[in-house]
Amino acid sequence: MLHSLPVQMRIEAVDFFYLSIPQVLDIGDGSQDALLVRVLAGGHTGWGECEAAPLPSIASWNCPMSHSACKPLSASVLGQRVEAPEDIRRINRLVRANSLDLLQADHTLSGIDIALWDLVGKNLGQPVYQLLGYNQAFPKIAYASQLFGGDPQSTFRRAQQVASAGIRAAKFGWGPYGQNSIEEDEDQVQAARDGLGPDGILLIDAGTIWYDKVALAEKRLPALRAARAHWLEEPFVSGALGAYKKLATQSGPVRLAGGEGCHNFHQAKNLIDYAGVGFIQIDAGRIGGITTAKEVADYAQAQDIQFVNHTFTTHLALSASIQPYAGLKNHNLCEYPFDPSPLGRDFTRVKLSPDQNGEITLPEAPGLGIDPNFDALEKYQLDIEIKVAGKPVFQSGPLKT
Amino acid sequence: MLHSLPVQMRIEAVDFFYLSIPQVLDIGDGSQDALLVRVLAGGHTGWGECEAAPLPSIASWNCPMSHSACKPLSASVLGQRVEAPEDIRRINRLVRANSLDLLQADHTLSGIDIALWDLVGKNLGQPVYQLLGYNQAFPKIAYASQLFGGDPQSTFRRAQQVASAGIRAAKFGWGPYGQNSIEEDEDQVQAARDGLGPDGILLIDAGTIWYDKVALAEKRLPALRAARAHWLEEPFVSGALGAYKKLATQSGPVRLAGGEGCHNFHQAKNLIDYAGVGFIQIDAGRIGGITTAKEVADYAQAQDIQFVNHTFTTHLALSASIQPYAGLKNHNLCEYPFDPSPLGRDFTRVKLSPDQNGEITLPEAPGLGIDPNFDALEKYQLDIEIKVAGKPVFQSGPLKT
Repeated sequence: MLHSLPVQMRIEAVDFFYLSIPQVLDIGDGSQDALLVRVLAGGHTGWGECEAAPLPSIASWNCPMSHSACKPLSASVLGQRVEAPEDIRRINRLVRANSLDLLQADHTLSGIDIALWDLVGKNLGQPVYQLLGYNQAFPKIAYASQLFGGDPQSTFRRAQQVASAGIRAAKFGWGPYGQNSIEEDEDQVQAARDGLGPDGILLIDAGTIWYDKVALAEKRLPALRAARAHWLEEPFVSGALGAYKKLATQSGPVRLAGGEGCHNFHQAKNLIDYAGVGFIQIDAGRIGGITTAKEVADYAQAQDIQFVNHTFTTHLALSASIQPYAGLKNHNLCEYPFDPSPLGRDFTRVKLSPDQNGEITLPEAPGLGIDPNFDALEKYQLDIEIKVAGKPVFQSGPLKT
Repeated sequence: MLHSLPVQMRIEAVDFFYLSIPQVLDIGDGSQDALLVRVLAGGHTGWGECEAAPLPSIASWNCPMSHSACKPLSASVLGQRVEAPEDIRRINRLVRANSLDLLQADHTLSGIDIALWDLVGKNLGQPVYQLLGYNQAFPKIAYASQLFGGDPQSTFRRAQQVASAGIRAAKFGWGPYGQNSIEEDEDQVQAARDGLGPDGILLIDAGTIWYDKVALAEKRLPALRAARAHWLEEPFVSGALGAYKKLATQSGPVRLAGGEGCHNFHQAKNLIDYAGVGFIQIDAGRIGGITTAKEVADYAQAQDIQFVNHTFTTHLALSASIQPYAGLKNHNLCEYPFDPSPLGRDFTRVKLSPDQNGEITLPEAPGLGIDPNFDALEKYQLDIEIKVAGKPVFQSGPLKT
């Protein structure tokens, strides 16, 4: 007679919380809203975050099935066993197959997957990076991620603020950069260098502004070289592999960075294999969670390409995005949201602040080591109600249980 | 003094209609539901269809803005001038930029873009293929798109039905194929060949079942060669370029086909540039509409890769998917939904049925030449209601106005 072991932990509930500042501005600041995910299983609570448009992500959770490869995420998640890392990987594969034709699914999965790693870590009493197989979480050099100012003076002041806060690296991006004249862009980049000082690591982010037009990017290279930029990020959209490659062959010593737009493993692999990037930037809240981000980190290490997190939002997202490469000592840069919105600041009590060396180290605590600050977040929550044929398929509930 | 011309046509309204059969089954039949899009401008009505999960797509239309590159589609569409093809292309670029981080946006855009081509065609009194620059719409050999039967006998009968309907090509896919033993898969493929007869064009669709595992696909090649399959479709997920390439180097004379999962131009370009496909299959309802599908058709022609539509749903979608390559004489295959659901059958009064040569030709009528059949569709409509913070952001209205 066979004795089957009792299954102890199955996913009992997944809840989504749409948080937003009252007035979202038409600027590049991605910390103005957030989609928080809570997973309950076996008496434990896991937290995650989708770096995604909240409403379409919420709609993908419990929408009606369209066909066998276009199912809502709930079909692949609720009731699943979640006791060990391999369970999370299995759920990740299941969602990708069952929701193959539901485009938003990869972004929604990301927050769920992060919450599952948090939950399993709490259950097993281990930080996520240990569950991923790393013995140690190495400190990362924080780079302050900022938007370009409206003019060079304002960019200069922002860079000075970073330097005087003891942070050794700064990235400037979006805003007017790439749409102005070559001279104006040059002034912006030089202002960033001047404000940061000669020793700071300077990173420039074009935010896909040149789409796939190599000539537009080429013209900015002299100014980037003159200012000793360490990388040029996202000159083109993520899929423009040939354009990246063409620019990469002539951009030295400035290397190319990209990858935040990737929403599955292969898109990131393709950037590494075909696009000539020196840095692969992965947002665990978009690519499919910590599971997929770790796959990319493994591949990046094998190919000698530097893995870097992409994080412009909260410290919960920051912890989630660092875990996948925490144990890779030489992959030592880390995006750090320097000036987030009030929502981003209020999101967690525990903060991953740079130390006196300007470095960030993950908490030595189970799971992600960072829980949301419910008391502060309640006022940001937007109530969401979705009905199909008169029946509710989603109704948001309270953050505090 | 400057005299500005009065703007005559701006987009006044965009409406979404979620249609579904009462009981959607867990099978690969993508015609079980549909997301119909209606655009109104200057007294004209354009119709389009998203080949997408309806609810997340609807949610992306008018969701709150998250930041400057994560806006709802309405922000880039409502009020825009739409008088000529270049207006549609401009709107397409605008949506891609403003909704860069809203993953579902590409699928939602697809239906809107299709409706805009229909509308501009009606306004200018020209079929869409002429607006795209083609002088003539060449007939395409219809291939009947079918699911594998549960066993070889059932597949044999389905293939016989196709042949006796005077259709010269058939594709079998999904169902059990690829998950069974090599022998069982071989029996299925051979049954399809036997039912179709020796002269029929046989196509096999693996529906991404082997993910990126080349070895699993390799083992099926002998049976595909023995049955003289013309192509093997989607052995892997769309992004697995290296896996495609590895299989392509050894699959001859069976060539690889893929691309239905692409949701932007560059993903399709990458399949052509790096994956060794012989056929690039584009669904205008997913890739970003007719605008983006035409870009891919242009590139495919230049690279001597055969463009084929992907259509598993309605005859409105079929017309939209053929327009982008209608004028390419040598790109002569065309996916044809042979056995759609009642919804798929009822969708339009005008049908693009294969002629006595088993060929389909586009209607010589303005726009897409095919309007939805409102009377038949009303009973399939699902009422949708979405509220954010108590305020409605979407409420579906009646199909008939």
